[in-house]
Amino acid sequence: MTTQELIAQIHKKQSFLCIGLDTDLDKIPKFLLKEEDPIFTFNKAIIDATHHLCVAYKPNIAFYEAYGVEGWSSLRKTIEYLNENYPEIFTIADAKRGDIGNTSTRYAKAFFEDLNFDSITIAPYMGKDSVEPFLAFENKHTILLALTSNEGAFDFQTKKIGDTELYKEVLSISTTYKGSENLMYVVGATKAAYFKEIRKIVPNSFLLVPGVGAQGGNLHDVCAHGMTKDVGLLINSSRGIIYASGEQNFAEAAQQKACELQIAMKKELDGLHQVF
Amino acid sequence: MTTQELIAQIHKKQSFLCIGLDTDLDKIPKFLLKEEDPIFTFNKAIIDATHHLCVAYKPNIAFYEAYGVEGWSSLRKTIEYLNENYPEIFTIADAKRGDIGNTSTRYAKAFFEDLNFDSITIAPYMGKDSVEPFLAFENKHTILLALTSNEGAFDFQTKKIGDTELYKEVLSISTTYKGSENLMYVVGATKAAYFKEIRKIVPNSFLLVPGVGAQGGNLHDVCAHGMTKDVGLLINSSRGIIYASGEQNFAEAAQQKACELQIAMKKELDGLHQVF
Repeated sequence: MTTQELIAQIHKKQSFLCIGLDTDLDKIPKFLLKEEDPIFTFNKAIIDATHHLCVAYKPNIAFYEAYGVEGWSSLRKTIEYLNENYPEIFTIADAKRGDIGNTSTRYAKAFFEDLNFDSITIAPYMGKDSVEPFLAFENKHTILLALTSNEGAFDFQTKKIGDTELYKEVLSISTTYKGSENLMYVVGATKAAYFKEIRKIVPNSFLLVPGVGAQGGNLHDVCAHGMTKDVGLLINSSRGIIYASGEQNFAEAAQQKACELQIAMKKELDGLHQVF
Repeated sequence: MTTQELIAQIHKKQSFLCIGLDTDLDKIPKFLLKEEDPIFTFNKAIIDATHHLCVAYKPNIAFYEAYGVEGWSSLRKTIEYLNENYPEIFTIADAKRGDIGNTSTRYAKAFFEDLNFDSITIAPYMGKDSVEPFLAFENKHTILLALTSNEGAFDFQTKKIGDTELYKEVLSISTTYKGSENLMYVVGATKAAYFKEIRKIVPNSFLLVPGVGAQGGNLHDVCAHGMTKDVGLLINSSRGIIYASGEQNFAEAAQQKACELQIAMKKELDGLHQVF
């Protein structure tokens, strides 16, 4: 998917919501466990109920890997279902991979070609030759971890490197990589004040923002500092939406939560149209 | 496996060799492709031919993931074959994972419990709460990326943070994590001169060292600066061993290459006994 297609979808749906499919057998409604593939059954119901309210889905790969071969089968069914039924949706493999040259190419092929995801999250620690293999794929997007929303982000990411901080160095240096036009960045919403600084380094890039809601970030603050004229934000919510109810009505309850966020996002987009 | 059991195995086999199972359908002997599971067939032959010369195997997870559900099935068969037939072998899931709290726990369960690997490689970028969930597993080991052997290592890892470099900060801070006695570190052998500095920070930890051979590192230099009284090194070789021949004799050729390295390692261990 091209970035322009993503932007068009955002304007059409008046939403920049990404729904995280962190699907966990311990948390989905109990009555689904008797299904042949409870994970896919759950995902399908969530997707069918929310696809018109969001522009992206982000399966967290760890949750699928934890169930071994069956988990991978559920993941494959989920991405195939999305690509067949809702091809306008932007899909994110939240894999946080990062390895050298030929291994990165393997991962890129697995997620971009075999599973046909539009994008993947990548850790920056190993640098240029761990990232560029992903950037070589046309109309595929690489979402680099910059500033995450967890406590451990302060261990290294915010440490000073000369006059700057490590996460800013990651932003700056990555813009020099070959194919950097295919880069997006993960920036945690728990640190809305940082968005202003980040926009000085990557004024136009899309930012994938976890941590609105459950992790305490504030949608309006993030938009005030992080939004660009082409929106430039994908706001992720996972547990707050998909586990809104553990009963028969789980999909409706998820739809309700997604709808609340979409309405709040429409308000921010209305504000954007007044500014630009 | 306990660290003491690993050390005992090293002394028994007079080897600290780790063989990387980067198994690639494009590189294994062509005649194997007609097998029902060419990847497992290849791995089994390599393992049977080399297990007495090495102390560890390290499947690179990307290579298996690239083949989807079948790849995961080959990986599972490989680790089960190792655990059943050669339980003394230390197994490393080279996954380079890194994610927050509950996601890390998922990965830890997938690799430590479901697949029953002894250890996993982890990226440090997300800090404490992305690493500690792995450290909570008894007699399982977490191998943190410190200084990798690729060109991109210079993008961030060797950058100055105050008076030190990022990779040294990773070493220092990680020693304060809960369960840090279960930590080992990846240190690329292309930078043998760094080992002296590294040993000042982690004098006793095991270091997993890629880059001897194919990537240009020198075994003797690494041992001179990196070895501890309990050896403290696992030297990895992947392609140089497993792809030594593309013909019918591939397993014998791999054995020959592994044997050459084992002999060189025995010499280093003899030297160690003279020093300590």
